[in-house]
Amino acid sequence: MPKSRRIEVITSKENESIKRLKKLHEKKYREELKAFLIEGVKVVNEALDNVSETINLVVFSQEAIQKYGEFFDKCINLLNSGKLRRLVQVPEKIFEHISTTTTPQGVLAECSFFDKGLDVLNHHNRVVVIDCVQDPGNLGTIIRCADAFGFECIVTLDGTVDVYNPKVVRSAMGSIFHIDIVRETKKEELLETLREKRFALYVTTPHGNVDISTLSVDNRFAIVIGSESRGIDAAFLENATKKVKISMPGKAESLNAAVAAAIVLYELRKK
Amino acid sequence: MPKSRRIEVITSKENESIKRLKKLHEKKYREELKAFLIEGVKVVNEALDNVSETINLVVFSQEAIQKYGEFFDKCINLLNSGKLRRLVQVPEKIFEHISTTTTPQGVLAECSFFDKGLDVLNHHNRVVVIDCVQDPGNLGTIIRCADAFGFECIVTLDGTVDVYNPKVVRSAMGSIFHIDIVRETKKEELLETLREKRFALYVTTPHGNVDISTLSVDNRFAIVIGSESRGIDAAFLENATKKVKISMPGKAESLNAAVAAAIVLYELRKK
Repeated sequence: MPKSRRIEVITSKENESIKRLKKLHEKKYREELKAFLIEGVKVVNEALDNVSETINLVVFSQEAIQKYGEFFDKCINLLNSGKLRRLVQVPEKIFEHISTTTTPQGVLAECSFFDKGLDVLNHHNRVVVIDCVQDPGNLGTIIRCADAFGFECIVTLDGTVDVYNPKVVRSAMGSIFHIDIVRETKKEELLETLREKRFALYVTTPHGNVDISTLSVDNRFAIVIGSESRGIDAAFLENATKKVKISMPGKAESLNAAVAAAIVLYELRKK
Repeated sequence: MPKSRRIEVITSKENESIKRLKKLHEKKYREELKAFLIEGVKVVNEALDNVSETINLVVFSQEAIQKYGEFFDKCINLLNSGKLRRLVQVPEKIFEHISTTTTPQGVLAECSFFDKGLDVLNHHNRVVVIDCVQDPGNLGTIIRCADAFGFECIVTLDGTVDVYNPKVVRSAMGSIFHIDIVRETKKEELLETLREKRFALYVTTPHGNVDISTLSVDNRFAIVIGSESRGIDAAFLENATKKVKISMPGKAESLNAAVAAAIVLYELRKK
């Protein structure tokens, strides 16, 4: 069976690759090693289809090899064709040790960082800026929405949860592989770049004077999504081209941050 | 100080009121006692303003009395005027014991159930039906959205997480007190009622043939919100007046359930 010749079998927690995977649960090691974990068949599959060159290795638990046989075969083929560097098989116990979830599917991969610098804004006309969103589930949901509504670039600011946090990656459901990401940017630098490149700047605030449903959209714009509790940073409010609001005819005073972002991105989708 | 005369101080976990509050963490006791817990200053305040007659008692921790002095005074006034039945003060330890959160604010209340029967549909023209949403955070978020966009009635079907679950109540942020709720309804019974009362029935499905943004809305309608994983029940698909979809020009194949619901309710808001 030459097909499976290069699959590595690892059975010890003390193995260097396993120790490295475990380290990637923590942000400080992710920054040091410039790599992060993705988990679950759907997400790993999306990564293989979109950013395979950044994948350092794919790990299967023994049970997952049986359960996701077709996907395992795909990985073997990529390994044989040289498009996947390493394919690793581990016992369930080791998988549970490296897993980022409490109910692991048994498939996980290590990716190198693939975020871009601010100069990537040269190639985009519609940018989503995320400021101070701290809940990983919310950030993942917003990235997934941005992707669904045809945005191709996301900029996160300093103070926003790490894009490479396993919970963000999980709730983004593969969307981080479809979109250019600029990460942990300084506010001043971003504002400077947006000015230089002549982006209109939209902010969403309950005190906005333009109903998002009636906004006439500029050719080139950045939309700022803030957190529910902290609202929009003063620097963005001062520099805003338009301050938009979501009209709420009912009694609730506000919306969940991810929901408000979703509605704004929906209204700004490519029509 | 006659003002504070009737405030009860409870210092033992063995006190019957404390035991009862602890029991209300579990659905089986909520159903038996027809009561549930609400927690946090904002939510308890919303309840006092909207459904004070259903509140059986309000509990403050000693620290919370200091911290939320103004709100405590409001409760004392309601107690003195007979609009609040009981006001209880407990040490922090006891509060932590009865709290439904890991970071308690120190304010909690017991409410009697206030859900309605299906005949409440006589009074409404715009109804949100929730089928099989199992995540409490998602259900709470959907209720908050429905309230924000001017819906006044929600029907949850058997198989949906309990509206009175503390996590649902928390993420709904007071919106359950603004809206008529019909709870744990049988699908057949609901469909029969909707037919009788001549409601149009809208369902959202990726296979819908009407873009939600172009839907011309009937005077009287029910919109069915399903779960992300299970989709819309066949009985609703068969009986649907219109099958709507959210257009997604980007690469993500689907949206988070709460986000999809939010966009649909936004599009169907009273304009």
